[in-house]
Parts: sequence; structure tokens; C-alpha cells
Amino acid sequence: MRQSQLFIPTLREAPAEAEARSHQILLRSGMIRQTASGIYSLLPLGRRVLHKIEQIVREEMDAIMAQETLLPSLQPIELWEESGRNRDYGPELMRLSDRHDRSFALGPTHEEVITALIRDEVHSYRQLPLTLYQISTKYRDERRPRFGLLRGREFLMKDAYSFSANWEELDRVYEDMVQAYTRIFTRVGLHFTKVEADAGTIGGSGETHEFMALADIGEDTIVTCTACDYAANLEKAIYKTGTDAEVTKPFTQGTESQKVKVHTPDTKTIQQVASYLNLEPQNVIKTLLYEADGVPIAVLIRGDHEVNEIKLQHALKVEQLEMLDQEKYKDDLQLPVGYLGPYDLSMKIIADYAVISMDRAVTGANEVDHHYIQVQPGQDFTWDAAADIRNAVEGDLCSSCGSALTFDRGIEVGHVFKLGTKYSDAMGATFLNQTGTPQKPIMGCYGIGISRLLGTIAEQYAADLKMSWPVAVAPYHVHLIPISVKDEVQMELVHELESSLTALGVEVLVDDRNERPGVKFKDADLIGLPMRVIVGKNAADRQVECSWPANSQDTENTEPSSSERMSVEEVLEIAKMHIFPKVD
Amino acid sequence: MRQSQLFIPTLREAPAEAEARSHQILLRSGMIRQTASGIYSLLPLGRRVLHKIEQIVREEMDAIMAQETLLPSLQPIELWEESGRNRDYGPELMRLSDRHDRSFALGPTHEEVITALIRDEVHSYRQLPLTLYQISTKYRDERRPRFGLLRGREFLMKDAYSFSANWEELDRVYEDMVQAYTRIFTRVGLHFTKVEADAGTIGGSGETHEFMALADIGEDTIVTCTACDYAANLEKAIYKTGTDAEVTKPFTQGTESQKVKVHTPDTKTIQQVASYLNLEPQNVIKTLLYEADGVPIAVLIRGDHEVNEIKLQHALKVEQLEMLDQEKYKDDLQLPVGYLGPYDLSMKIIADYAVISMDRAVTGANEVDHHYIQVQPGQDFTWDAAADIRNAVEGDLCSSCGSALTFDRGIEVGHVFKLGTKYSDAMGATFLNQTGTPQKPIMGCYGIGISRLLGTIAEQYAADLKMSWPVAVAPYHVHLIPISVKDEVQMELVHELESSLTALGVEVLVDDRNERPGVKFKDADLIGLPMRVIVGKNAADRQVECSWPANSQDTENTEPSSSERMSVEEVLEIAKMHIFPKVD
Repeated sequence: MRQSQLFIPTLREAPAEAEARSHQILLRSGMIRQTASGIYSLLPLGRRVLHKIEQIVREEMDAIMAQETLLPSLQPIELWEESGRNRDYGPELMRLSDRHDRSFALGPTHEEVITALIRDEVHSYRQLPLTLYQISTKYRDERRPRFGLLRGREFLMKDAYSFSANWEELDRVYEDMVQAYTRIFTRVGLHFTKVEADAGTIGGSGETHEFMALADIGEDTIVTCTACDYAANLEKAIYKTGTDAEVTKPFTQGTESQKVKVHTPDTKTIQQVASYLNLEPQNVIKTLLYEADGVPIAVLIRGDHEVNEIKLQHALKVEQLEMLDQEKYKDDLQLPVGYLGPYDLSMKIIADYAVISMDRAVTGANEVDHHYIQVQPGQDFTWDAAADIRNAVEGDLCSSCGSALTFDRGIEVGHVFKLGTKYSDAMGATFLNQTGTPQKPIMGCYGIGISRLLGTIAEQYAADLKMSWPVAVAPYHVHLIPISVKDEVQMELVHELESSLTALGVEVLVDDRNERPGVKFKDADLIGLPMRVIVGKNAADRQVECSWPANSQDTENTEPSSSERMSVEEVLEIAKMHIFPKVD
Repeated sequence: MRQSQLFIPTLREAPAEAEARSHQILLRSGMIRQTASGIYSLLPLGRRVLHKIEQIVREEMDAIMAQETLLPSLQPIELWEESGRNRDYGPELMRLSDRHDRSFALGPTHEEVITALIRDEVHSYRQLPLTLYQISTKYRDERRPRFGLLRGREFLMKDAYSFSANWEELDRVYEDMVQAYTRIFTRVGLHFTKVEADAGTIGGSGETHEFMALADIGEDTIVTCTACDYAANLEKAIYKTGTDAEVTKPFTQGTESQKVKVHTPDTKTIQQVASYLNLEPQNVIKTLLYEADGVPIAVLIRGDHEVNEIKLQHALKVEQLEMLDQEKYKDDLQLPVGYLGPYDLSMKIIADYAVISMDRAVTGANEVDHHYIQVQPGQDFTWDAAADIRNAVEGDLCSSCGSALTFDRGIEVGHVFKLGTKYSDAMGATFLNQTGTPQKPIMGCYGIGISRLLGTIAEQYAADLKMSWPVAVAPYHVHLIPISVKDEVQMELVHELESSLTALGVEVLVDDRNERPGVKFKDADLIGLPMRVIVGKNAADRQVECSWPANSQDTENTEPSSSERMSVEEVLEIAKMHIFPKVD
């Protein structure tokens, strides 16, 4: 392909709006342009990468007998009423009306459409298991779209839905899907971890895993064990309880065994009271008020910890959970914001495990500008339940093997989910089992953010304004750059190399533009093809400069090796070794 | 592929809602299902056909150096304000608002988005010519969606946009595109005609052609010459004027050379007055009133002809043209509806050529229940202009060669259009030419309805509840049907044939379902694969029944040849001959 004919609008300047490395490199290399906030146009090079990702996803889906469909984005709102998601989804669901004032949702996912289809078309266990998928544009009106393709409002997604006659069948489909996802992310060259995630309050086993790409700008925290293969999303991560590190005991005032009320003016936050008392946040007990299924509840958590609302929800066995409105509890419960303590509250108390093992702690005194010190849990206050209701923290130990847990940032690129009968129940889908009894199909759903995956690969493989695409998804494989397009000897060698490489099945981009070498090299750095061949003054000796992926297996090393002078024949050998095995 | 594992919900009953043959066969063969009016889900077999069409389109686009992109469907309404199409497009444009109340159009086409992109990114003649395309979902809120995929509200379309520095460059791109379209429609097996169409009031040369698939249910009328290659859409079709067939002269009353007012009670329509006077509609002159750019005008047309409003608009050189509101002209102009004649009208008169050569015609008398007979055009009334302002009719002669014109019904599957600078002007896109002068890029746009094409192929290749997919787009190539899946000898031969055919690059669908042969054959008829191999009681002798496309070049013959008994080796020979050359 001739670069002079391709539409690759590279940018000399770093675009101001792009924070993320991937967003910058995709804009600068002319792969994408923003059309509106969170809405992008994929330009020719970007479209090529997207196609290659799509193709890998299709191959792996087809390999596990998932069948491709194409479902509509315009979805009658009645289907969303049936499932209850019209209410639950909130403003992220884009809605519109047609010329007859009929309402539609612009599909963010397709559980409703597919369940309605299966309800109409699947009537017998003999039609199960069945897994359908599609690769199509999805719409989600993100409150804060950002990082280019990483969090957009219109994006390409592969979504799959499985229907099984029983849970064992679902388990098999789920495992197949996990394996397929692992192959997909491996093939595209991603550094990723499969982590346990939380299913929320959906019924069934609710087993769910996320595939997380490691990246500093990731919005998720991944907790992994340094020794065993335990890995979980922070919201799901458990740790070895009862091993909370000893904390320095705070100072003693008066009789050590009695709590003492002290004046702590203007210390509404944990940080403020700890500073004022010359203590650490871990010496303080936070008392937080929640509304759980409409009932107020007090939650005790150590000052340096964070409540994990999903764990809390599970511990309380409730469906709705939200922090009590501060203004509301001030008026209704007559409690002083910022100075709450677990005393004389007209509600149940749940304490995190770490709280009940504290010694001489600080709590609010239920009085403005006052706290208690030297509080002994179990003696000075009690609780109705104790549970693991906090986020894991670095330093916690693995609940499986006791080794240290480490934390990383991750971008969610894939999600597999045992849905159970949530949609079959809500939408009344049934089939007849072997004995002729109506049963609900048991569903799973499985997603991969295709355009997000493109952004994520860029995030992992971009460095210092140089991109370095993995061979399997690179827009072309070899960048063939003549130093001077007016030099006939150079151009002759370029054409020979182009033919020979193309004959090997290698995709070649020839920079045939009449530009200075510096301009060409800068663009080549941005475009980031795996192999670069520069044809210059040694063309007459059939010698070129070549750089290629130093070790294409070593995905940690994203830098191409430094350039080496070599013969045309050596170039072809290297292409055969490094590029060709990865093409197809 | 095993049919038992595929989701192919065939239907025993003809679906009541489906009028069109293609709609029926696609529903019955389990290829599509309706999700809402004009909105369809493509099921696995349908998705496969769609992929094959897409692939052919991509190959032919890439071959003419069109570059693939992917542009968003959510398009800021501001872009549509700039182009003026937010006003012009009317209720077919679906609109919605995001969570911040910003308005978006749901793209029916992408002229605005692409022109905005080019405005930002193309600054020099050296970047031109440039043709970008995409295959993506489009939205059009049709007033009357129908015929399944033929006229939907959400559909897959290939749209391409070219930008050129001058008209000669556009002419070349346009011709390349016409050639590519011709190859695409030929490759997918369509019977089609390229016809001249009308560009409406868009500036530039406005040259435009439509690719019409021949089909009885087509909504367009195609006019073709029986001798030369002239072909046009009815709204564009011209004919040899001045050759209007002689019409039988009407009876004579009183002096032959004078018009006579006669009483014609209750004869508001042409048909009524002709019957009443015992004449033909071709003896009557219709007087119609239009509003052309706001000015009333009278239009004279022969009673058996139809006004061609596009020709009329061109003849009048106006932008807006609509029939005068009957109620409005009754009150304002004091003229009797149904009895108008070209006398004493306070407006200009334009007459069709056929009118001015009429002899002793009938007109209204501008008086209720009265007409004139024996009217001589030019003597009893005059006109301000005469022009070709009627639709061609069968019997008209070709303006190029004088041979007879014939009429067919067609489905528009492709459209190529020299847009000129309509969008460059409106949206302020410019580039610098060789002398550094700012110029407007000259645009073309080119569309193929991908999902409509699927429906159109089905329309042409379905007959009597049997489908017969052309090899190039068939979901699979060979349907391999064992009579009894419990017969080991049969199944062994099936597996052998499957392996041998697959090794040839042929896609095989094995009906491994434990069903009666009649059920399998009915489904096979609906699914309509090009070649069918039935493995039955002669399996032990390695003999099978085979049918295949009788003559794969003869696209008129869509019936498979009748079944023949043959050996396994002969089957492979036939597959090599009829299927393999068409694969890839």
C-alpha cells in the first residue's frame, strides 16, 4: 500500500484534550478523530486494526460454536419495561421516539432483544444449549466519557448470550467462553488478568469474571496474590480476616480502661481528628449511616479503610443500599454530622472485622466538636453483626494461601457473567425439558469492548510518542521507507522488497511520499508498525536498515530492537521468522 | 457445520405479515426475525449471507483505492444545521437528546460527518482525490416500512464519499465507482440495470445513476430501450418527442373548427368526462394548478399522461414545486375544481408537448358540470411554454435510437451521485490548489444498501417456497443430508464427503438431525444451498443423490437441476466445477 494515497492525518502537536497515552497516540497517528464528546470516527488505519481484532474475536467465538447474529440497536422500550431495566438503567440508557411517538432504547446491550427472540423461537431442550453473539455498535450515555476509545458513548462491542437447560450446561459454556476470551486477549498481545468480580444482586450463582488489562490509567483496582493465582476486582476481593496488622496504640489519658470524652473542635473528617489528636487514621472508628432497603443502619469501619458497599450489601442481604442523605439524618435522627459514634443509635450496627479487634480507639461522641478516646470495642459499644465489609488494602494477606496481596490498576476489556434466570423470569421465556415440563432457560452473557480493546492495546504499547503494534493487530506489518523517492536505485529495491514481502503474506506500507526522512521517521514512530525497513544510500549494495520486534514472544518488551544494516535476503528471513508466523 | 447445533428456526406456515417473496423466504428459512416494524434481527444464516455480501463490497471498494472508515451514528445536530439538512430531511431523520440535552441525529447517511472531518484534515490538493467508505448501520424513520429488509428503518449500508480537486478528477472516481458497483452486483448474482436518475436541485453537473434490481415488487419504474443501452428511472426518462401516436379524433358537433361548450354533469375526473362523452382519456386535456416557488402556474397534460414533477421543476427552473391546495385555489382563484380549462387564467401556462399537437380536444370550461369539446390548441387557447413534462409511457420511442421503450419494476440497490460542492459550500470546506488558492473540494457520494441487497437477492432467487442462493453469497455451499442418521454406513459416507468437500474449500452444512426425510427436504428447500447431496440406501455402493445449479453462469435459471444418482467421486468433480471456482 502506498502511503501517499492513504488518509493518515498525523499530528505534529500533542492534542490538548488527550490525557491518556492511547488517546494521544491514536489521535497523533491519524487513527481516530473525535466527532463529539465520547464519539469517535475511526480513520483508515484505525479501521484496519479494528477489523483485525474483530476477526480474532470471530474466530474464537466460532471455535466454541457461538453463532453470529446481528441484532438491532433500536429496541422497543416495551422490552425494557418487561425486564425492568428501563427503570434501573437510568440516564446512561439513550432513549428516543419514532415518528409515531413510539419509544425506543438505543441498545447498550441486548439481553432484552435476545431473550424475546429465544422466548419466541426456542421451545425444547433439544434446541439447547445455544450461544448467540454479535459484533455491533452500542450506545451508553456516559456521565463522563474520557480517555478516547477507553470510555466512549458510542462503541463497538462483542456481546454474546448463552441459553442452557441447566446450571451444569451453563458452567461448561461459561468455561468455554473463559478459554476463548483468554485466547483472544493473548492473541491480540494484551497483558491481562482474569479476576473475580461481583454479580450484584442478580440471582443464580451469579459467578462472574472480568478480564482486566493492566494500565496505570485503569479505572479499576485489581487485587492479585503474589504467590497463588487468586485475582479479584477490588469490589470483590477478599483477604484473610483476623490478621489486621497491629496498630500503634494511641496515648493514654486517665484510667486506661475507660473511654474519655475530649474536645476536638472543627474535626469533622477522620484526617482532621487524627491530626488534632496526633494519631493515625487507623486509630479512629468511622461511623457511617446507610439506608438499606429503606431502613437506616450504622456501619463501623476503621479510619484508614473504605467501606465496600457490595460486601456490605451482601452482608446485609439487601437489594438497595445508599448512604443516608446527610441533611436528612441531621433533621430526622438529630445526629451531629462528623461526630457520630456507635452509642445510643436508634438503628442496628454492623462492624467491619477490623473494627472489633481495635484497642483504645477514637470514635465520635455524638456531640459537635467532641470525640471519645480510649474506646474499647465490645466494652464501650457493641454491634449487631460483624463482617468483612471493607475493601482489601495492600498489606492484606491472601485468603487462599496467606501470601501478600498486591494492587494494580486495570481496564476492563471483557466480562463473563452467569446471569441465571433473571431475564427468563422477567420476560417469561420457557422451554419444555425431557419430561415435558416447562423450565426457564439459564442464561449467561459475555462481553468484549472491541473499540475499547483497540484503545487498551494502544495504552499498553505506546511509549514516548512511539507506538509499537503487536503483529496480530498491526494495521500493516512492515513499514518500507525509501530515504529518497527520487532515487531510482532506492525505489527499485523498494519495489522488489514490497513484492517479495507481499508474496510472503506480509502487509507492506510503502512511504512513497516526497518528504524529508525526518518527517517520514516521525510518522513511522507514530504509526508503529512491527518491522521497519529503511532503503537508503546502500541500496546499490542491496543493503538496508531494518528494525523488528526484538522478541515477539516477550510482550513486556514493546520497544523495537535498534536498527541493523542487513541484506535484502536477511530482511526476508526476519520477516518469515517474526511476522509471518503471526499472520493469519 | 452440524445443523443440529445451528439456530435455524424454519417456519412451517407462511407468515401472515410477509407480502414480498423475499420477506417470506427469509422468515421461513430462519434467516431473519422482526424485532419491531421495519427493524430486524439477522439470525446466524442471514448473518453469514450478509458477511459474504460485505466482503465482496469491501474487496471491490479496496480495489479502487477507497479507504474504509467507521463513522459514528450519533451525529451532533449542529452539523445538520450547517448543511441545512436538519430542516430538509423531515421526520425520516431520527433525533434524540443526550443527558445534557444536546441534540443528535441518528445518521441516515454521513455527508455532514465526513465533510466536517475533511474540512479539518484536508488542506492541500496533494491530499486529493480521496475516497472514504464505511459499512455501518443506518437509521431512517420510513413512513411505511415494508417488504422485510427491502425497506427498513434500521439497515446496513455501504456509503462512500469522494473528494476531488476538480470535476475531471470526480469524473474518474465516479466511473471507477460505477465499475466497482457493476462488479459487486454481478458477483453477488443480481439481475440489475444501471439507470440514469435525477439529481433534484443539487448544483454541479448533478450526474447520478441508480443500480436497479429487476423485481415485480420494486417501487421504481425502469425505462429501458429495446435496442440501444439507454436506461433511466421513470422520473428521469426522456423519449422522442413529437412522435405522440395519433389519437382517434373525437366526434364532431356543429362547425368542426369551433369549440363547443357541453353539459357534462358529475364529471370531475378525466375518466368520468371521457366516459360521459364516449371518448378516451387521450382526447382530454387536464389542466392542473401548481405552486412553483410560491407562484401559481397552470399545467396542461394529456388525459392519459402523468405529470413528471421533476421534469416540470427543471422546465420551470424552480426549487420548490407542489400541487396547489385544492381548497386554497377554490377560494382564492374562484375556479371550479374538476372543470378547469386553459382560459382566462390569471397565471402562466405550461403545456406538455403532447398537448400542443392534439386535435379537437376536450377541456374543462371553467364552469361546474361543463366542458368544451372540439378545442384546437393554439387557436382556442395558448401557452407560455411547451416542454416535455410528462412521464414516458410504454409505446414511446427511445430518444437516442428511436426504438421502443419498455418498462420494468426495479428495486434500487445502489446509487452513485456527483454531489459537487453542495456540502463543501454549506460547511465551508476548502483546500489550497497548486497555485495556493483556496478551493472547494468537489464531492461524490455512493451508496449500496447491504441488507436491502440481501433481501433483493432473495427476491430474485426465491420461487414457490424454494430458495436457491447464488454460490457467492450462499450461507453454505453444500447441503449434505443423510436419510437416516442412525444408519452407520450412511453416516460414514457423510463424514467422508464432508471432509473431502471441506478440503476443497467448500462450506458444508450436514443435516445431522434425527428427523424424517420429508422434514429435512422441506427445510433444505427453504435454506436453498446451491448443491444438495442426499446420502441414502445406496450409501453402501458409495452412490448418492446430487443436485446442483443447472448452469451456474445462466443466472436466469434459478432452479437446481433435478437430482441425479452418482458416485462420491462425481460429487467432488461437480463441486470442483460449480462451487469451487465461485468461492473466494
